[in-house]
Parts: sequence; C-alpha cells; structure tokens
Amino acid sequence: MKIGITGTGSYLPEIITTNDDFINHRFLGPDGSEFEHSNATIIEKFHAITGIVERRYAPPELKTSDLGFLSAEKAITDAGIDKEELDYIIFAHNFGDVQTGKIQGDTLPSLATRVKHLLKIKNTSCVAYDILFGCPGWIEGVIQAKAFIQSGMAKKCLVIGGETLSRVIDPHDRDSMIYSDGAGACILEADSNKGEILAHASQTHANGEAYYLYFDKTNDQEGCTDTRYIKMHGRKIYEFACSNVPQAMADCVDKAGVGIDDVKKVFIHQANEKMDEAIIKRFYRLYGKEAPDGVMPMIIQEMGNNSVATVPILFDRVRKGKVENHGLKKGDVVIFASVGAGMNINAIVYRI
Amino acid sequence: MKIGITGTGSYLPEIITTNDDFINHRFLGPDGSEFEHSNATIIEKFHAITGIVERRYAPPELKTSDLGFLSAEKAITDAGIDKEELDYIIFAHNFGDVQTGKIQGDTLPSLATRVKHLLKIKNTSCVAYDILFGCPGWIEGVIQAKAFIQSGMAKKCLVIGGETLSRVIDPHDRDSMIYSDGAGACILEADSNKGEILAHASQTHANGEAYYLYFDKTNDQEGCTDTRYIKMHGRKIYEFACSNVPQAMADCVDKAGVGIDDVKKVFIHQANEKMDEAIIKRFYRLYGKEAPDGVMPMIIQEMGNNSVATVPILFDRVRKGKVENHGLKKGDVVIFASVGAGMNINAIVYRI
Repeated sequence: MKIGITGTGSYLPEIITTNDDFINHRFLGPDGSEFEHSNATIIEKFHAITGIVERRYAPPELKTSDLGFLSAEKAITDAGIDKEELDYIIFAHNFGDVQTGKIQGDTLPSLATRVKHLLKIKNTSCVAYDILFGCPGWIEGVIQAKAFIQSGMAKKCLVIGGETLSRVIDPHDRDSMIYSDGAGACILEADSNKGEILAHASQTHANGEAYYLYFDKTNDQEGCTDTRYIKMHGRKIYEFACSNVPQAMADCVDKAGVGIDDVKKVFIHQANEKMDEAIIKRFYRLYGKEAPDGVMPMIIQEMGNNSVATVPILFDRVRKGKVENHGLKKGDVVIFASVGAGMNINAIVYRI
Repeated sequence: MKIGITGTGSYLPEIITTNDDFINHRFLGPDGSEFEHSNATIIEKFHAITGIVERRYAPPELKTSDLGFLSAEKAITDAGIDKEELDYIIFAHNFGDVQTGKIQGDTLPSLATRVKHLLKIKNTSCVAYDILFGCPGWIEGVIQAKAFIQSGMAKKCLVIGGETLSRVIDPHDRDSMIYSDGAGACILEADSNKGEILAHASQTHANGEAYYLYFDKTNDQEGCTDTRYIKMHGRKIYEFACSNVPQAMADCVDKAGVGIDDVKKVFIHQANEKMDEAIIKRFYRLYGKEAPDGVMPMIIQEMGNNSVATVPILFDRVRKGKVENHGLKKGDVVIFASVGAGMNINAIVYRI
C-alpha cells in the first residue's frame, strides 16, 4: 500500500530576533566564567558555525499548541480532506505549552487534544496524542502514522511538530542563540497518489549519549538554581551526529531499494549549518561520491533551530516553491533525516 | 498473529500517606473560600466516594523515570526475554520527571530514554519514546506497540506507565487526596503463546470536554499564581465517564467477537471507586445483565490514583496472585479500560 504525504502546512512566528539583538547579553561559561572574547566576536563565531543570522520567536499570545494548530489548518486545507475523516492527530514536541515568562510546561491536556479542540473536530474516533522524541519527533510521528495505516488502524493522520524554544533558553548561555519557535504539519494518507514512503529507520542511543541534551540551571551562578533550561554538549553532539547519521541515512536508502543518484533532496534537521554540511558530505562519501549542488535545502539562516519543526517547515516551504533555487517534481526521491535529544536518529526515504 | 503480554512488573513506592495525614491541611474551594465542614468530614466524604484509605508517594531520590525503570526490570525478568531484543520502549506519563520541591517537569531526554539508559540496553535499534495521553496512556502505549508488531516494525515491546502525581498537586485542593505515585510495565510480544489482544478501541473527546482535567494555580488566593497544579472538574468527569466508557467497552467486546459472559475480569483505571462501580454497572446493563461479583478487582483503597500506572499495576498484582480473591487462568477473557485527560477513553479486550 502506498502511504503518502498529501498536504503540508507550516507556521513561522512573526517576531524576528537578529544576532545583533544578543550584543548586550551577558554570556557566561557553564561554570559562570566570563568569556575572553567580546560579544561581537562570540556572535561572529556563532554565525560562522551555525549559519544562523536571525530566528523567529512566538508572540506571548501564542503557545506551542497554537503554532501547531495554525500549521495543521494549512495542512488540512492543502490536502483537501475533511478534517472529520482524520483517524489520528500526533503532536511532536518536548516541552509542552510554556507561557511567556513562566517556567512550567503545560501538557494537561495534551497538545494534540488542544489542536483537536481548536480545529473543532467532533469525531471522537480521531485519537489525539503527543510524542516526545527530541528533535526527531516529527519524523517519528510520521513513522508511527505509517504503522497505524499499515496495520489497518488508520487511513488519514495529521502529524504536527511544534516548539517554542525561546521560552526554555538560558539568556546567559551562548547556545541559546541557536533556538527558535515554529511549527509544521503534514497529512499522511493510505492509498495516496501524491507520493509514497519507501523506507524508514529509527535509533535511540541511550548509553553515554543519553544526556548530551539535558535540562539544567542557568550559567549565571547568582541566578535561580531551581529554574532549568535546555542545555547541550555541543561538541559531543556534533561528533555523535557526524559519526552516526550518515550511516543511518545510507541504511535507509539501501532498504528503500533506490540508488544514491536517485536522491534529489535531503531535508535534514536544521540544527547547525556546518554540522548538516558535514553529515551530507560523509553520507555521500559512503557511496564514494561528492554531495551534489543543491541537494540540501537550508533555511536555518532565517529560521534558527526550532527542534521538531525544522523538517516539516522546510519541506512545506520547498514543496510550495518558497525556497529559492529549490523545487520538487513528481517521482523525485527525497530523504527526511533528523538527530536530537535521546539521542535519537531517524530517516525516511520518500518518493514524491 | 497473536500479540500477547508475556511479562509484567510494577513498582509501588514505600511512603504510605493515610487519609488522616490530611487532617491539618487547609482545604479551600477554587475561589479560595473556606469549607463549612471540618477536615474530618471532608476526609470521610472523600473516602466514601473514592474508596481511598491510603496512597503511595515516591521518596525524593526517585523520579518518575526511576519508578518506570524499576517496574520495567521486573517485566523483562518476568517475560524471560533478553532486554537487547526489545524493539521499542514506550513510556506513558503526563508530567515528566518532577523533582521533589521543584515545579518544572523534565523531559529532556525523554523518560523512555532514561529507562533505556538505566537498563543499559546497547541495541540502538531499540526505539525509546514517550507518549502523553492522560491516564489512558499506558493502554494506548500497548495499542501502539500492537500496531508496530502488526505492521512488521517490531517483535518485542516494553510499555511503561509511570507518574509521581504527589509532586504536581495543590495542597489546598481536596481533590489532591486522590493522587499518588507508582509505575507498571509489560512486555508485548509477537507470536505469543501467553495470551492475545483480541480488539482495542480509542477515543479523544476534545470539544467541551478538552479541559475537564487541566493545569492551574493553587486554590490559596495568596499563594504563588505562577505555579500550576493538576486540577479537575470532578463532577463533569464523573458524568462524562459514566456516559461514554461503558459503550466504548461494549463496542470493543463486540469487535473482539466474544460474549459478555466470557469476560472474567475488568481492569479499569483506578480513578474513583464509586465512578468505577457505576461504569461497570452501566456496562453490564447494556447487555441486560448485572455485574457479576468479583469481576472488577480494585486496589485504589491502598494505592490511590497514580494515573497511567493504575491499570498495569493492578494487572501485574492480580496476575501474580497478590490481590485477594482474584486470580486469572489461561483462556480467561479480560478487559483493560481507562478514561482521563484529553478526554481520552480506551479499552482492550484480551484473552489470557
């Protein structure tokens, strides 16, 4: 049975925060030490590594579930389906609904329920749940929807990835400049004539890697030690991703029974431009090849890293011709790939 | 293909809090008003409705993921499987790891990853994720594991339900006496000779019902308005559950192709003794029958309501002969059923 993505939607919040907006931040090391470089130098280095120039933050009146709803509405319209036909609403996130200026995440009820509520879906057989799987959560949600369709439990699923990371970052941590807010969604359908999942792969590395991304107190030693923020061991994540993601992608391509030259685009989690480039380079090297020009669309420059939302937003924008010099045509083989907290890795090989 | 539960485990924390321990609490209405009755009367009424005499709280050194790990270890041993053969670790909860005295839930990394880390599982193909689905989360996790097995994506899955509700309750809210801590787990396997899932049903009611269980500030009008706790519209939930759960269970029994007289036990979410009795009564009334004696094992008296954990703990204890006057034998048909935040309802008809 062909299981395909029949509609997509995304929502990018309107508040644009540029790198210059961080110029007066008091950045500190994890031990509270001051940096020897000026903020201008720190920001310049940050830009050189991550590629990020600006990022989007949600306005106070919108929570993660609202961003998810706004992207879901568009995906439903794009697919041209009746929302009452949905069998599942799967919402991938990691922190729940966090209000501006507050520190608790709210997951009661689940964000998927909140979206169903906002969509005013009456059909009680439409099951709404949340999945926590780090940044790869949206891709994992698509894989789960595929399982439900394959096992006969569903025909139409809505899969959303949304996050407001701007509300869980430590202002004294340089790494906080990476994170942003946003949401993306897709409709997955059985017997689709709009595309087909060819293969998928998922991994969880939970030995030494389990806490590469973690929740901890501010770098400001005089700050509140009770409040915790998203924290990461950036160097370790970089090495982990470069060592493991290319092979996972290659295994998935082989499982799909397609050739490397069939791959037209790789929609990879927008985590860090240099890291993504290194992954793609190593991926092609596994086939004795160089990465073709234009194979990896990238919008991290203007979007930052909004976790679960990067891949569905990127795919939606390319699919709708909104990313310069990138397009898709019927029959193209593409890869979705992600890596993040868990540490989780996953990939999908998809024929448009 | 027969998909069965081949092992179970549970963990009940050691701290016992009795109803008398609430005698000096300052209970207030949602608007901050004092009650006209004494605490002794409030507690007596609470006991009459819920059946709860005492409940278990986790000690400060254990978090939800630790309780989950302790129950998972037992389930793996009970099933007699090699932990490295697990294809999935699915952890159902709703609030993440909350430390004693802190208010933030920690889900970075996911609780499933934390369990995998504690179990020291090396196999990276064992995918670990969390599901948020209110109290019915553990049953929903079993349904998802079934889908993965049916679709050929998995052979062996570990499904855990764990919660430390003692850390998200408002001390000024009478309803807080209901909640408790605990964890339960099971191993689900393909080609099982130890039992078989016959049918399942799931629903999400997200219109007027979406916020019957919600997150809100303390009833103490002088308390911190930033900190939020688990809150509920108890009367509405009672009516919702009595109106909708019996029919969902009956639909599931019919789908399973078994007769009402085949049903030997109903393992229902231990939310409230009177509510559970009313649900069972109405369920049998749909078949023109009275509920048989002993069909509904109940341990809420000593356990309280630990959300996702009530059903797997109850099943584990009955299965292992630890609940007086309740036993199971090969071939018995049983029902798992739950209702909770979402508002979600689900049921599984299972042959032992």
